[in-house]
Order: sequence, then C-alpha cells, then structure tokens
Amino acid sequence: MNQDYITPDKWSIIEEGFDPENVESSESLFSLGNGAMGQRANFEEDYSGRTFQGSYIAGVYYPDKTRVGWWKNGYPEYFAKVLNAPNWIGIQVFINGTPLDLNTCKKISHFRRELNMKEGWYNREFAVILPNGIELAVNVTRFLSMDLDEVGAIKYKLTCLNASAEIKFVPYLDSGIKNQDSNWDDKFWNTTKIVSEGHRAFIEAHTMKTNFATCTFMESYMELNGNKLDAKPSEITGQDRVGLAYQQQVQKGDTLTLIKFGGYTVSRNHPPSKLVQVAKRNLQEATELGVERLLERQKSAWAKIWERSDITIEGDVKAQQGIRFNIYQLNQTYLGKDSRLNIGPKGFTGEKYGGSTYWDTEAYCIPFYMSTKNQQVARNLLEYRYNHLEKAIENAQKLGFSNGAALYPMVTMNGEECHNEWEITFQEIHRNGAMAFAMFNYYRYTGDYTYIAEMGLEVLIAIARFWYQRASFSTPKNKYVILGVTGPNEYENNVNNNWYTNYIAQWCINYTLEQLQKVKDGHPEDYDRVIGKTKLTAVETDQWEEVAKKMYFPYSEEHSVFLQQDGFLDKELVPAADLPKTHRPINQKWSWDRILRSPYIKQADTLQGFYFFEDHFTQKELERHFDFYEPFTVHESSLSPCVHSIQAAKLDRMEQAYDFYLRTSRLDLDDYNNEVNEGLHITSMAGTWMSIVEGFGGMRVSDDKLSFTPRIPEQWDSYSFKVDFRNRILKVTVTREDVSFDLEGADEMSIRVQGNRVVLKGRNTVKL
Amino acid sequence: MNQDYITPDKWSIIEEGFDPENVESSESLFSLGNGAMGQRANFEEDYSGRTFQGSYIAGVYYPDKTRVGWWKNGYPEYFAKVLNAPNWIGIQVFINGTPLDLNTCKKISHFRRELNMKEGWYNREFAVILPNGIELAVNVTRFLSMDLDEVGAIKYKLTCLNASAEIKFVPYLDSGIKNQDSNWDDKFWNTTKIVSEGHRAFIEAHTMKTNFATCTFMESYMELNGNKLDAKPSEITGQDRVGLAYQQQVQKGDTLTLIKFGGYTVSRNHPPSKLVQVAKRNLQEATELGVERLLERQKSAWAKIWERSDITIEGDVKAQQGIRFNIYQLNQTYLGKDSRLNIGPKGFTGEKYGGSTYWDTEAYCIPFYMSTKNQQVARNLLEYRYNHLEKAIENAQKLGFSNGAALYPMVTMNGEECHNEWEITFQEIHRNGAMAFAMFNYYRYTGDYTYIAEMGLEVLIAIARFWYQRASFSTPKNKYVILGVTGPNEYENNVNNNWYTNYIAQWCINYTLEQLQKVKDGHPEDYDRVIGKTKLTAVETDQWEEVAKKMYFPYSEEHSVFLQQDGFLDKELVPAADLPKTHRPINQKWSWDRILRSPYIKQADTLQGFYFFEDHFTQKELERHFDFYEPFTVHESSLSPCVHSIQAAKLDRMEQAYDFYLRTSRLDLDDYNNEVNEGLHITSMAGTWMSIVEGFGGMRVSDDKLSFTPRIPEQWDSYSFKVDFRNRILKVTVTREDVSFDLEGADEMSIRVQGNRVVLKGRNTVKL
Repeated sequence: MNQDYITPDKWSIIEEGFDPENVESSESLFSLGNGAMGQRANFEEDYSGRTFQGSYIAGVYYPDKTRVGWWKNGYPEYFAKVLNAPNWIGIQVFINGTPLDLNTCKKISHFRRELNMKEGWYNREFAVILPNGIELAVNVTRFLSMDLDEVGAIKYKLTCLNASAEIKFVPYLDSGIKNQDSNWDDKFWNTTKIVSEGHRAFIEAHTMKTNFATCTFMESYMELNGNKLDAKPSEITGQDRVGLAYQQQVQKGDTLTLIKFGGYTVSRNHPPSKLVQVAKRNLQEATELGVERLLERQKSAWAKIWERSDITIEGDVKAQQGIRFNIYQLNQTYLGKDSRLNIGPKGFTGEKYGGSTYWDTEAYCIPFYMSTKNQQVARNLLEYRYNHLEKAIENAQKLGFSNGAALYPMVTMNGEECHNEWEITFQEIHRNGAMAFAMFNYYRYTGDYTYIAEMGLEVLIAIARFWYQRASFSTPKNKYVILGVTGPNEYENNVNNNWYTNYIAQWCINYTLEQLQKVKDGHPEDYDRVIGKTKLTAVETDQWEEVAKKMYFPYSEEHSVFLQQDGFLDKELVPAADLPKTHRPINQKWSWDRILRSPYIKQADTLQGFYFFEDHFTQKELERHFDFYEPFTVHESSLSPCVHSIQAAKLDRMEQAYDFYLRTSRLDLDDYNNEVNEGLHITSMAGTWMSIVEGFGGMRVSDDKLSFTPRIPEQWDSYSFKVDFRNRILKVTVTREDVSFDLEGADEMSIRVQGNRVVLKGRNTVKL
Repeated sequence: MNQDYITPDKWSIIEEGFDPENVESSESLFSLGNGAMGQRANFEEDYSGRTFQGSYIAGVYYPDKTRVGWWKNGYPEYFAKVLNAPNWIGIQVFINGTPLDLNTCKKISHFRRELNMKEGWYNREFAVILPNGIELAVNVTRFLSMDLDEVGAIKYKLTCLNASAEIKFVPYLDSGIKNQDSNWDDKFWNTTKIVSEGHRAFIEAHTMKTNFATCTFMESYMELNGNKLDAKPSEITGQDRVGLAYQQQVQKGDTLTLIKFGGYTVSRNHPPSKLVQVAKRNLQEATELGVERLLERQKSAWAKIWERSDITIEGDVKAQQGIRFNIYQLNQTYLGKDSRLNIGPKGFTGEKYGGSTYWDTEAYCIPFYMSTKNQQVARNLLEYRYNHLEKAIENAQKLGFSNGAALYPMVTMNGEECHNEWEITFQEIHRNGAMAFAMFNYYRYTGDYTYIAEMGLEVLIAIARFWYQRASFSTPKNKYVILGVTGPNEYENNVNNNWYTNYIAQWCINYTLEQLQKVKDGHPEDYDRVIGKTKLTAVETDQWEEVAKKMYFPYSEEHSVFLQQDGFLDKELVPAADLPKTHRPINQKWSWDRILRSPYIKQADTLQGFYFFEDHFTQKELERHFDFYEPFTVHESSLSPCVHSIQAAKLDRMEQAYDFYLRTSRLDLDDYNNEVNEGLHITSMAGTWMSIVEGFGGMRVSDDKLSFTPRIPEQWDSYSFKVDFRNRILKVTVTREDVSFDLEGADEMSIRVQGNRVVLKGRNTVKL
C-alpha cells in the first residue's frame, strides 16, 4: 500500500512533491494512451535515477522464443512480448552546458504532476536549483491526441529564475531501446533509416521477427516568452538516434518553450513504403493546428467520452477519483475502433503479462464496453474470437484433442497461444467457458442474436466438443469428472473437479445445445451452413448431453457449500485475516508450494460462478458460499475485489461492499498489491465499473428489460451512472432517499426497480 | 528402441558398419571415464556430420542463471550445469591436403567400434576412400587411465592402402567449446594462456562464475611402421585453440601412427598456480611409461575392479553384455576415491539433468557400492549429505520452514538446490526420506553404527523436523495429511497424500525417534552433543510422534490397495498396454496435462515403498499392489524396470522379471526410451545390479546376516555375483539345480538360504 501520495481530487490525479521512490509508480499512474498508442509518464529530459521506460504501439509485439528449463510437449514456440517502442518524447535540456536531471539537482523546491482526466492531458511542473546554481522553473504539458491518433504533443516551458543563461534543447528520437523484461538482452528493433529535415526527423525501424515497420517522427520549434523563434537546429545523429539541437540565450525571468510533436506511423495501418509520407502529413496537420487547438480538440474528444461513460459520486472524493481513473484508463487503452485489437491487462502502461488478450475481456470488460459505447464495439470483441477459431482448434489439436474441438489461448496476440507455464497454458481451461458466456451476455444485453447465428454457433460447437473430450468418467463417482485443471484461482494448480470449471463446462454444453435448436428454428440457413461445416451429428450432441447431465460437482454436506475442488477441506482452514501481516501479499512472501497447499484464494473462483450464473442459485446459497470462501480470499488478483463488491452489495453488506469497491477502484492509486510500478491493472477496471453499476446500482437484464436494486454506501451522498441499453441512453442517479432515471429522447422504456415494474419517460424518480 | 546395431558379446560393446544416424547414440554408448574425467566417444578427426561433443571433468560445473517465464519465490538463483570441458582428444588428419572426415568420404568400406570393458579401452577401425581417391585404413585406440587419472592416451594408426601420400596430423587442444544445451549461447570458459613447447601444448582456462581453473594439456609423437620419428611439429595457434602440425610423406602400405597423451589438471585438486607444472609431470610420467605400458596398467586396474564386482551369466550373451555394461559404466563414473564427488545421473556421457547428485544415489546406488567396494565408499556417500546439512537447512528456510528443518535438494553440486521447476524442486520432497533410508540401509548392511552416532542423527533430526512441519491436520480425515507433493512418479504433480511420501515421512519420524534412543543408550556423548547442537526437546519429539501416529494413507477398500494418492481411482484406468504404439513414450508424444490426468506411472511409486519396506508387507499385499499398479506403469524413468524386476522375481513371475531385467540392463544398449543419444542412464545401472543380486539372487540382510532365495530365469544356464559383506567376500553361483557359495578366506559365515540356516566355510553348495 502507498496510500497517501496521490492527492484526492474529483477529476485529476495529482502528485505533490518529488520522491524518487515514487518515480516508477507515478510513471504507471500518469500513463497516457489514445487506443492506438500509449506511454508511461517518463520524463522528457534525461533522468539518471531509477525509471521504467515504456512507450507502446497497439498491436506491435515480439514473439519471444519460449525458453524453459524443461520443455513440455505442447508449449507454444513463442511468448508474445509487449514491445517497448522507440522513444519520441525525449528532450535533453542543458543550461550553460549542465544537463537538467532531477536526480542530480541541488534542490527540488517544487514538484507537481497532474493527470487531468476530464480533458485528457498530463502536466508536470517543478522548480529546481541545478548543480551549477541556476534556478529553473519548468512546466510541461503532454497529451496523445484522440483526434490525430498517431500524434502526441509536448509543450516544454522553462524559465530561468535567477540568472541569464544559455539553454540548449535537444528533442530526439531513439530506437535503440530495450524491454525491461528482456532477460536475455535481446534487441527487438532494427533501425533502417534515420533522416532529419529542418525541424523534423524520422527514424524508420522494424521489429525483429514480426517485422512490423514503423516510422517514429517528430517536429519541434521554440518560443521565447510566447513568440515563435525561427532558430535552425543542428542535427546530432547517433546509432539508432537522432536529435535536433536548439540553442538560445535567455535573460533572467525569460520563458523559453519547446513545442514538440511526435508519434508513430505503423505498417499495421499503412503500406510500409508510405510510413514517412504519412508521418509528414501528420506533422503537417498537427503544426498547422498548433498545440493549443490540438488541445482544444482533445478536450472535446474527452468530453464526448465522459458524456457517455461518466460515473459521479457525491460526498466521497477518493471514491470519485477512483472510478474516473478506471473509466479514463479503459478509454485510453481501448476505444473499439480497430477490431484487430483487444484489451491488454496492462494496457499501455507496462510490459508485464505479454500478449494482449486474456479471458478478462470476455469475463470483465464486455459489460463496460456494451454499456458505454455503441454495441458494435462489444460485437467486435466477440468477432475477434470468431476470427481466432481456427487457431483455437489448432491449439487444442496440439494438446491431443480432435474433431474440431477448440481451446482458446490463455494469452494471445493473433489467436496463437503464447503463454508457457503448463499449469496455466494447459490447465486453466475454464477460459473456454468465458468465450461462451460473453455471447450469452452480449445477447442478453443487446438482444442482437445475429452474432450467434452468423458466427457464435461455430465457436460454441468447438467449445462443447472440447468439454466433451476433456471430461472423463469416474467409476467410483459414477459421474463425469474434469481432472487436472487450474481454476480462476491460480493459487491452486492441477486440481481435480474445480467446481467453477465443471460448472461452466456443463453450462457451455447445455447452452450450445439450446442455441443449436434456436438457430435451427430461427435461422435455418445459418444452421445448415454451420452443420455442414462442422459435420455435427446427433450422436455427438447426445454424447455431450450425457456428459453434461452426469457432471460431477464437489460438495460439502457439512458446510452446505460446493467445494472449490476435490479435497479442499483437507487444507488447514485458517482465515487470511489470521496470517501475520509480514506474510502478505503471499505471492511475494511465500514459496509456490506453500501457497498451493494453503486454502488461500487469489480471486473469486466458486464465487465467480455465482456471479456469472446468479439466477441458478438462491440468495441463501450465495450467502453461505460468500461466508465460506471470502475469509480465505487474499484478493491478490486485480480481478477479485470487484466480484466480491458486487456480491457483498447483493447480500446487503454495504460496509464490506464499500471496502471492496475502494480496493478495486483504487487498486493502483493506493497500490494495494505493491506492484503499481510495473503498470496498471486495466482489465479489472471494467470490474470496478461493474461494482457500481451491477453492485450498488443492482442493474441486471432479464427478459429483455433492465432491472435495478439500488443501494448506496453510507459514505456517499449520491451517485450516478449512464448506460446505453439497446440504443437508448439512461442515466441513473441514486441518492440516500431515491433513485432517478433520466431517459434520453422521447421513447418510453419499461424497467423494474426493486422488483416493481416502472415505465420510464423523460425523468422518473422512485423512492427507496 | 534400436535393438540391433550393438553386436552381442560377453565382454565388449561392438558396433559394425557406419550409420550416421547412430553416431550420437554410439558417442554415448562408447563413452570413457575414469572417475576423475570422462568423455563421449567423439571422433578424434574432424567430423562434419551430426555429433554431440562432450568431455567432462568431475566436479566442474557452471551455475547457469535460473531463467523462467514466471519466477516463483524459492527458486534457486542458479541451475548447475554439467560443463562441456576443453577438448584434448582432437586430431585433424589431412591426406595430401584433403581432410579425413567420415561425413565426406567417397566410401566407407569398413567401420567397427569396440569398447573393451574387461580391459578398459575403446578402439575404432575403419577403411575409407577419400574424395581425392586415396584409400586409408585407420585404427584408433583410446583410454582414460585409471592409474594416472588426469591422463588419457590415443594411438591413431593410419595406413595408406593405394598410394603414397603426404600425411598431416594436427593434434590440438580447444577451449572454445560450448554446451549443447546452452540455449542462450553463453560461453562458459575463459581462456587465459596458450603455450606450446616442442611436442607439448597447454591451454589454461577457467570457468566463468565458478572460476574452476584448468590446464588442458597434450603431448604427441609419430611412429612410422612402429619406429618413432623425431619430426618437429609446427605450431598453429588460434583463439582458444592450439594445434601442433606433424607432416610426413608415406609410401603405399606404410602405417603412420600418432600417439597422443592428454588430459586436465584442475584447481579442485591442485593450487591454480601449479596446474601447468602438474600437467608436465603427468606428461613426463605418461611418456616415460609409453602407451603400451600404460595400457597394461589399465588392464590390471580393470582386472581388479572386475575381480570384486563382476557378474557372470551363462547361456544368455545379451544379458551378460548388459550387466557388464552397467557395472563398467558405474565404475567409469564413480570410484569412491573423492568424497566431494557423487554419482551423476548421466555420469560423463552427456549434459542432461545438470548437477551431480539426485536421490538416485541414496535409493539406488548405495547397495552396489556397499557390496562391490570397501565400505568406506558408501560411508563417503553418506558423509557427502552430512556435509551438506547446513545448506539443506537453508534450503528449507527459503521455503518457509524453521527450527532447523532440512530439505535436501533435488539436484545439487555443492549442497545448494539447483533445479528450478516448482513441481519438482518444491514438491518432490520424498527425496528427504531417501537420505534417512540410506543410513538405515548402510547400517543394516555394514553393521557400522558410528556414522549415525557421529553424523547421521543430526541429519535425521533435521529431516524429522521437516516432515513434522510439512504435514498438516485434516479435520474431515482426523489425520495428518501431506498436501501438494510430487511422488517418485513424476507423471503426477501437486497431488495430495502420495502414499509413498506419507509412508516414508512416517517412517523417518519413527526411525529418528528410535535412533535418538539408541544413540542415547549406546553413545551418550554423541547424544549430548547432538541434543545440545540441535536444541531438541521432548515436547518436539512428542509432536513428531503424534504426527507419525496419525498419518493418513489413502486406501481403496474395493481393490484392497493403498492408493498412489488421493483421487487416483477417478482416473480412466486404461492399461498402458491398450495405448496405441504411436502414443509411446507418452512423454515424447503427449502434452503434460494429458500425462498428468492419465493413470500412467513413470516409475515405481507405491511399489518403491514396497521395495524399501518390504518387511512391512505380506507377499499377498505385494502381489495385489503389483497387479494393480504395474499395468499402468510406462517405465519411462530408467529407475523403474529394476524395482519391478526385483518384485516380479519375489513374486516368482520369472518371465516378467526377466523382461524387466533386460529392459533395465539393456536400457541404453537397446535404447528403449529413444534417448541414448543424450547420454547414458548411470544411476539406474546400480538398479540393474540389484535386479540380479536382490531380484534373482534374492539377497537380503536381516539380523546381521545375509539371506538368499535364489531363482534363475529359464533363459540362463547359471549366473554368479560377488558381494563384500562386512569385509568378507562371498561369491554366489546359481545354476538351474543348485546354488554355491564361495567364501574367501578361512572364516565361517552364517547365512540363510531359502529360509534355512547354512554355515559357510570355503565352498558350499545347496540344492534348489
């Protein structure tokens, strides 16, 4: 935990004062992104202290060779690594020849950062005394344009406070960068061409192996006290690097500003031969607009996003800051414009986890994007998996499955599995279930059945085939069992009959059988096409049905709960609260075997099933399971507190729900798990959104209608959120006394509030 | 399997004819070693075909950095890698400037290798036509001296059959070598000095990180038709390489011979500054003796070894060849002279498995060395572990254990763990039991209790502390359980209550408690010293006792067998014989998850416990367990067939026992598991020895006496073996009718034969 260094504020993330210990954490927290690229909040000027440099381009990765001590058959050949891309933000600053470096200054008398989430920009201001005695005030604003999404802008203002001096700015581009997680000191980029033309420079480089071609570009000019200078720079070219040196004599009190535009053009979006040309067009547009007008456009782009997705909380600044930070980061990461992209668990804020797509997308992110964006965005996320179906079938084949059974990868960039730990890659197979659940969830929310008919059914058949083959018959139990899996709780490996896995396997088969019938009845042409393609027979579906019908679920009569897996009760069931504080987080303090034989749960597992399939269980059952499992849950996965918050709210345990809400919404801001330096937890931020809308707001969809059971934590005066439900925008405001619904437009809309039917038109208020 | 390319022979391993596909396998099978160094049977002359180069120095290793995708707490910092050492055997050969290279010859009209195990030398002869048309006959003899164990000798004879020619020999040393398993292209050797003096040359090099200093040396001369030439060589020095070029014009039919001595001096045995000096002394001694006299000494050294350890088999050449190959390789690997060394699973024949010491030593190798060498050799092997006790305690601490609990490493060079797969390193904890079992076994056989009193008790206490802490209480079972382990069957990971592990844990505690009493009674000073040092209290031993008393063992009432682990019966119990052949070996064909959820057993697990503790179970129980588990056992560990052979013999299933015997004794010769190219399975060779002595011979020790229940496979006319029991040498010869005992010396000795007491003196024969 590092709770106190971010200043609470409704719309901004603010750090006051300079602490080198916080540099790497702040680099994560103040990250910028615009869906197409992103970067950690590294300083523009040189910094010789500890830092984690990172700049990332959406979809650009490196297939790092899988290297393990002992190879296991079935491992993928490579692990897709998120690639640190060439640096375009760098500006070296020299004052009378002395470099500006916050790590070597005599004194830092003022330091402040602000990430303005409302408007989408990042500012850093500081005042320092250099080793040579010169006192400086610096103010830097940076943003990645939502409008021109290949361009970012920096306005670097510097004032000499106590003397006149010669200032040298060297804005530069650098493609000689490495990944921090590059254990093997590999180089991932090959620089092919470095060009400078006047105020502009370009580096063409491509990634090794994947051969993504990029042009990293920049253009700069200076202003003295607001007046543009026409000083010509001199070029300084190194290996993998080009800088343009601007020199200027300034008087005491003068403000010299360097304005820099930069960014990338990439062969994912343009022909490789046109990258420089497109880069020039970008620079042309940006400089013609100028930094101020570009910033105006940035503000209005963000205003539009907030208009659809903002959640307000009155009476609790930290809670308000938390939810906006989550919504902001989700929108920096993924905007749904490019269906080849997906939502990486660290977004553009770090290297960890490699790859871009986990089951997080289907299990946690879909509801946020369905409710706050056009429904095509969620559909794109589903189509992403349909497009990877062939690869998922190949993946299953590698593991010994046949007849078109599919196992979706644990981690992927292009549909291929690119994770290589056997206990995850081969065993965390429940991910297959999330693919089917997302379809169910999408249809339930949007009412759009065409995805299932046109594409989804094929995916469902392949998944059902997998579950059928993966289950095996246990003679002593006279049931089908699923042996050797890792459930959502990754603190258990190679267990038998993980309840969640068995449950979602059974559900997948039954859901597939239902959809087969439904497509047959409603979309006979699609049905014929799919049956023809998959060669599905009645014998096969009968076999599936048999397995689903006789699926085994571990259960404790004594506790009246489903067991997370066989043998769970043999563990020493000491509640996590009884562990010494020095042992937490256990994943940083305990060896793996100790974690595995403990009862401690990384994230909701049985309770995840209760979340997905809540209609299948009574409130009493939920309560028993929550009471049984939560005390052993250490929430060391970012995906844990949100589900627990939703369920605590459902059980009317508002104090607990509120604590979990804070934990999920401020996970990174308060660094609960001591790891924010590595980057942010992006996908779980969608879970934070759910913990308000589904948790406190109690929003559900049933029978094609929204329903609400609003609750409010006692720390709050009111809160509001907005959803787009089937192309109608509904704003929900909950106060301590009532709930108001504002339906945009002239239509009527029927909903349920606390079980009662309400027909909305315009504004309606219901007493609680 | 590759059953037919080694010619059956009682005393030699013979390959006839050249097949490039067999080169790497033969390089393993024809390996040489003398306990201090060893090498694969690489060709002396250049070979451009596929080859696996390997030369190894005992105790010289490299601490390769542990690099894994996802770090787990507790992993050791490094993995000890067996290091390929500088090459001293190399001799380039040019005929009229054309290199001799078996891969580029026009024709190979004859090719034969022989490893003469009786005398300890390796010969290779071949006749070829070179690309330039010259026909050559070559005959090379090589051996590593048992007498001067830093020296090896090569006699390389070459005859031009069809023309006169100019021959150039370039004997060389090369320290620019790599490991085949060097994924990261690391260099492990740093060459510091290259010197040549006349016919001699020296390369000084040290290993990176571990800084073992070595001098690799050579001296050569030529003979023409048996007459020594005094041709001076010219030096050819490269980076990491020195060659001495000898040139000679020969006539058709002339035989030109290059004699080369070479080897290593190492800082493990000499001060680093003296390595060259000692190397010169070695060369002086070797050249003064000459190759023929050195070979005579070699023959008599091996005669002495065979005198004590030979096993004869009449009527079955393949079986005879097999057992001698096993005994020969064990003696090439470890002679018991240096107590810092141990028995590496691949000896000096390959790189796989890294490290030198596994539980194989305690579980499989001790009986062989106890019976065929002076008992000090076995005691050295025990002391090796005593010397590592502090490191084993540190290792346990890293995993969260306390109060002096020890976990011996899975793999080690110097006492530190150097293996890094969680399911093995952290979970295959049964190895701790083997340490205690070896003490029990050593005392049972030798009657020497001083080891336990002086050293062993401390080890036992530390191991008992580990088991006490590692067990946990299961409320539903009302028993102590051991969760999350890997048993001897590594095809199961992270299982609960592996029967073997629980059983040996219980036994360790009980055995420790007994030894505490025994040392207290018989060696009170040792007792006081050990109690003072370990601060052991009565409270602690009471706690141990409680855990041992209430240890849980999984059991099936239906099958009346102990279950290998909880849940074993939930698997699909399809016998291994029903698997399609194309699926075998499963570790090369199946993904790891598929193996884990299958019932297939890599090596004896429950049956290993029945082997160690056979007195605890009835013959009927053994039979039930054998019948239950053997059908699922795929014997993909080299350590499996020997235990099964012994138990099949005990059950009087001689046909099966014989099959297992062939499989264990000819595992490498017939390449059962398709991997002999990687090196030989050394430690299991001691198991082969047991399968004759304990299996067919039925030798046991009880009440300080040997007992025998001899059986003979119907394929054999007779067999004999010799054991040293408490300094008396007894030869046992079993024919189809009777068993004879030849006791050396004038003493009497009381034994049991088929349950009956027999007092031996000189030769005694008992009818069967």
